[in-house]
Amino acid sequence: MPSDRNDLPTSADVFCAAQTIADSVHRTPLIRSQLLDQVGGANLWFKCEHLQKVGAFKARGATNALANLPAGAEVVATHSSGNHGAALAWAAAELGLPCIVVMPETAPRAKREAVQSYGAQIIICGPTQLERETALQAVVEETGAHVVPPFDDSRIIAGQGTVALEVVQQCRDQGFTPDVLLAPVGGGGLLAGIGLAMAALAPDVLVIGAEPAGADDAQRSLRGGVHVTTQQPQTIADGLRTTLGRRNYSVIRRTVRDIVTVSENGIVRAMELLWTRTKQLVEPSAAVGLAAVLEHSARFRNKNVAIVLTGGNMDLDRASSLLAGAEK
Amino acid sequence: MPSDRNDLPTSADVFCAAQTIADSVHRTPLIRSQLLDQVGGANLWFKCEHLQKVGAFKARGATNALANLPAGAEVVATHSSGNHGAALAWAAAELGLPCIVVMPETAPRAKREAVQSYGAQIIICGPTQLERETALQAVVEETGAHVVPPFDDSRIIAGQGTVALEVVQQCRDQGFTPDVLLAPVGGGGLLAGIGLAMAALAPDVLVIGAEPAGADDAQRSLRGGVHVTTQQPQTIADGLRTTLGRRNYSVIRRTVRDIVTVSENGIVRAMELLWTRTKQLVEPSAAVGLAAVLEHSARFRNKNVAIVLTGGNMDLDRASSLLAGAEK
Repeated sequence: MPSDRNDLPTSADVFCAAQTIADSVHRTPLIRSQLLDQVGGANLWFKCEHLQKVGAFKARGATNALANLPAGAEVVATHSSGNHGAALAWAAAELGLPCIVVMPETAPRAKREAVQSYGAQIIICGPTQLERETALQAVVEETGAHVVPPFDDSRIIAGQGTVALEVVQQCRDQGFTPDVLLAPVGGGGLLAGIGLAMAALAPDVLVIGAEPAGADDAQRSLRGGVHVTTQQPQTIADGLRTTLGRRNYSVIRRTVRDIVTVSENGIVRAMELLWTRTKQLVEPSAAVGLAAVLEHSARFRNKNVAIVLTGGNMDLDRASSLLAGAEK
Repeated sequence: MPSDRNDLPTSADVFCAAQTIADSVHRTPLIRSQLLDQVGGANLWFKCEHLQKVGAFKARGATNALANLPAGAEVVATHSSGNHGAALAWAAAELGLPCIVVMPETAPRAKREAVQSYGAQIIICGPTQLERETALQAVVEETGAHVVPPFDDSRIIAGQGTVALEVVQQCRDQGFTPDVLLAPVGGGGLLAGIGLAMAALAPDVLVIGAEPAGADDAQRSLRGGVHVTTQQPQTIADGLRTTLGRRNYSVIRRTVRDIVTVSENGIVRAMELLWTRTKQLVEPSAAVGLAAVLEHSARFRNKNVAIVLTGGNMDLDRASSLLAGAEK
């Protein structure tokens, strides 16, 4: 790994990360559904990262980051309303490292409970980006904790990218080659990592990102050629409300073919289809890839498309109201 | 298969059925969850029949029944409010056979839609057992259809039992031997089939049935030694409201060690745990096995317990209200 975290990660970092984390994370299954193939008009394979440790791909990056801590780091910290906080808490507990997670008071109960269950200390703060950063800064000053950011970090990007190496291998095992690898993009840790992995391993595969139309900073950044760093996200996909990171943008513009957006209705419909057809309880953010296939059908028709299902963590009462809303 | 359907099925019938249906149904995965092991105080393996064709183990029996039709049967029919109707419709469509399913007007929409989607003809009738049987009899008289009963049928019992052969093989592949195989019991097709399979293949494994306390005819039959043939079932586990069949009782009393009951709260809690911990969207009936482990914990403590997750079909709005009810 680059010793200076300001460096950009490379494809080689992803391959190293795969070695580093192999014994700590699950090699999640790649599943299909004939019914969804019919609905989508394409051959779809779903990479089940909701079955990953802590219920999200974030376990990959967190594990890789903690395996590459600077000398002397004895406490780790982050701010997160979501799966990164749980992943870091889990990965730290595996190593016996103390962990502090700054969480906004608005974070879903399920995610707070997850962080707690892994034994991390939680600091509650206000919901804005500034309040979170201020609270985290106070933690660092008080404890000397080493901060592991959720996405704008080379170790994190490399860790998340390992999912793509598995997808390619699992596709080969099943006797096919993907035409497209489709992943949601929020802060861009996953998509940048996948871009790096595929650039080295399978450059013919189109890597495409998908994001809610109500949080389309990544598309605007990529299509406009200028990194958009602010937005007012409006989406039920709580994992995708973050703004694309600096390193993430730099990597994505070089390695990702395009980013498409999807509607809120499309996300709910895709989530409903995944729940009822595959019986997999994925969170809204995880449904964005399938939503992209359904809303941009001409683009994906009859193609072999691998889609990352990113996570499965949500409050049951929230699931409940989304389900009720999804009813005809 | 026995040529006379009044005969009882044998262990050999289950082995034959496994050969017969191997190319038509999925070999579903056997999964585990460290968190559920902790909660349950036992080593739990879950056989994922909610990932089976049509989303339920019923695809096994239906496929085996249609592979063993009497000469001249050109139309098949059944009455079902649940997964058996969908399974028969699917299996018939695979063979290009016309299929008629008599369904009570109270059947869940999702199950009606499933039957329709496989191209079967649906006849709606009143909800009582008598109304269903009368409507089915009329269909038979009019069309000469061959009736495939949902559970009290040797071909069905043998087909459902194939799940146990896979469980034993998959446990071996993972390097352990189950102490207990735990399955829900409604009409008893699954449990009888498992009993037959294990009697021949692994007689040291305790086969135990689980049913809702509000539909406990199987426990009363087994413990009292007299086949209880009527009950007023009160349970959210809609797949387990049926009364134990005649052949099923005969087989179960010889091959099943015990039947335990679980509370309605226990079923909802187990379902909630399965949803949140394994991310598998199973229906209430499928949660009864885990509920048994939780409510009879002394009995299962530190044992290796394989549990059949029987299906994953339910209306989303119904799931929604159960989820809301499960909230603290």
